[in-house]
Amino acid sequence: MKKYNFGIVGATGAVGQQVLKVLEERNFPVAGLKPMASDRSAGKEVTFKGKPYKVIEATPEAFDGLDMVIFSAGTEVSRRLAPECAKRGAVVIDNSNAFRMNENVPLVVPEVNPEEVKKHNGIIANPNCSTIQMVVALKPLHDYAKIKRIVVSTYQAVSGTGLAAMEELKIQSKALLTGDEIKIEVYPHQIAFNVLPHIDVFDDMGYTKEEMKMVNETKKILNDYTIKVTATTVRVPVLIGHSESVNIETEKKITRSKAHELLSKAPGVILQDDPYNNVYPLPANVAGRNEVFVGRVREDYSIENGLNLWVVADNLRKGAAFNAVQIAELLIKYKIV
Amino acid sequence: MKKYNFGIVGATGAVGQQVLKVLEERNFPVAGLKPMASDRSAGKEVTFKGKPYKVIEATPEAFDGLDMVIFSAGTEVSRRLAPECAKRGAVVIDNSNAFRMNENVPLVVPEVNPEEVKKHNGIIANPNCSTIQMVVALKPLHDYAKIKRIVVSTYQAVSGTGLAAMEELKIQSKALLTGDEIKIEVYPHQIAFNVLPHIDVFDDMGYTKEEMKMVNETKKILNDYTIKVTATTVRVPVLIGHSESVNIETEKKITRSKAHELLSKAPGVILQDDPYNNVYPLPANVAGRNEVFVGRVREDYSIENGLNLWVVADNLRKGAAFNAVQIAELLIKYKIV
Repeated sequence: MKKYNFGIVGATGAVGQQVLKVLEERNFPVAGLKPMASDRSAGKEVTFKGKPYKVIEATPEAFDGLDMVIFSAGTEVSRRLAPECAKRGAVVIDNSNAFRMNENVPLVVPEVNPEEVKKHNGIIANPNCSTIQMVVALKPLHDYAKIKRIVVSTYQAVSGTGLAAMEELKIQSKALLTGDEIKIEVYPHQIAFNVLPHIDVFDDMGYTKEEMKMVNETKKILNDYTIKVTATTVRVPVLIGHSESVNIETEKKITRSKAHELLSKAPGVILQDDPYNNVYPLPANVAGRNEVFVGRVREDYSIENGLNLWVVADNLRKGAAFNAVQIAELLIKYKIV
Repeated sequence: MKKYNFGIVGATGAVGQQVLKVLEERNFPVAGLKPMASDRSAGKEVTFKGKPYKVIEATPEAFDGLDMVIFSAGTEVSRRLAPECAKRGAVVIDNSNAFRMNENVPLVVPEVNPEEVKKHNGIIANPNCSTIQMVVALKPLHDYAKIKRIVVSTYQAVSGTGLAAMEELKIQSKALLTGDEIKIEVYPHQIAFNVLPHIDVFDDMGYTKEEMKMVNETKKILNDYTIKVTATTVRVPVLIGHSESVNIETEKKITRSKAHELLSKAPGVILQDDPYNNVYPLPANVAGRNEVFVGRVREDYSIENGLNLWVVADNLRKGAAFNAVQIAELLIKYKIV
């Protein structure tokens, strides 16, 4: 079996750490592994299959000889280094926002639009975490009944911001429980025992970039620009696991039982909808899981053809690392690398 | 100035405690105060204006001689004792779900439908906490542009469940931070660092009672049964302060600036919508406040006439105790007592 030289930019970050775990769990055919990071983290060590690897600084030259590189070190790093990496022959799987809406860059969720990877020009974009889990859940419903409009409100974990935010939530929680003063560093306001309707920066119309990512990426991934989307994205004091309250309007009626049938056979979806026995998706249960969990399926009486859903996934896994590794697996499957 | 004999059933609970505070803050004309509770809490003491009051058991006879009684001890207690109280001549302001949808019982939010109190037959119902704050924010928009449909997702604090739930959140949080085992008692699942899409019991269609309260009470309070509402209600690890992501479709267009204008002069509303300076409503900032805070006002591009809003209020105050005391003040103003 052919093996591949694999690079990870941002190997010490919250997502980078999960990429290493997923590669290991999937027994990905790694010939050589090159963990990279910004100069600040270069020199640190990461562990892969029980062995320590020194993290080197991500430079254009460092990409020489690699087959695939997952970037997860922020938009600025991707913008600067991903083209350099692609130029040197490695396929970039980019977890940042840098290239997602670029029409020459496929935006791929393997359960939804796997074939898109074939159109790559050196870079494939991994969508935003909150978009990925939503489209995985909506794809079977869209195929069956054509979605006309989506109204989504999110409940997003702090790990989406990174390891420092996870620390901040823990430290603030401890301080508030013991009556100590809290420090506010990562977010503009206290996140412990609070919710922040603010993820990423605001545009002129009052939307955040995170909200507009959900609007725009959903259309591109589902390859249907007639779908209307509106989003409100909110940070909640949860460490891992994004939750979403998703309301859809469809052309064709979807009954609750039809939705159950469609979702129970959808790839990458686990249906958890037995509320009478307190069974519904919960962020506390999804850490380390690669699937998208869907429950609270209800017909929406406020319109003719509507449905409410509750969608939960590990934002570091399906929302980032796992989706990226799935894309790498598609590159192998389609003999692109 | 005339003074009134005032009773509180559930005086030792999370809401009852706030009723005492609000009566004090508003300098409500109290002649005599009778704090009551189920027999389990009878005998305890509460404090009002610096003086201790012994809590007595709520019995039919205990209501003799009272002018107004706020009930906040759960649906079962209200169902059993509120009619007894009304029979003895006191006006009941009931905070439970027992009578809200009864057509002989006014369901009152003083900023929205104050005149309804005049139609009482001994009992006036205080709406559900999450409904109250939503209708206060929506009333000026409905008056201006007529709301056709509401899609709401909530982020509700544990104090809505009561003092035991507040303790459970604190104790579980502490245990998880120190790596100890957690105990799950009040909710069916862990609430610390988690979100639960489950408030109150489920109906046959998969909705919770809390969700259907928002649907039905909204129409009754706004006195418009053409409004369509769909709701998803979710418990979050916040102690005090419910937040709501509210999407509305209106007959007439409401621009963002028009919404700002309408909301900034709406009674009981504080507009906090300067996201570029990180100003938006936050549950951590509303504890002890009686107003409804509205921000994140955005035109919804997914429909012709749509608007997104973020609505936050202290669920124990405007969502319960303050709204109840406001109703009591209306009874005085309209010379009903």
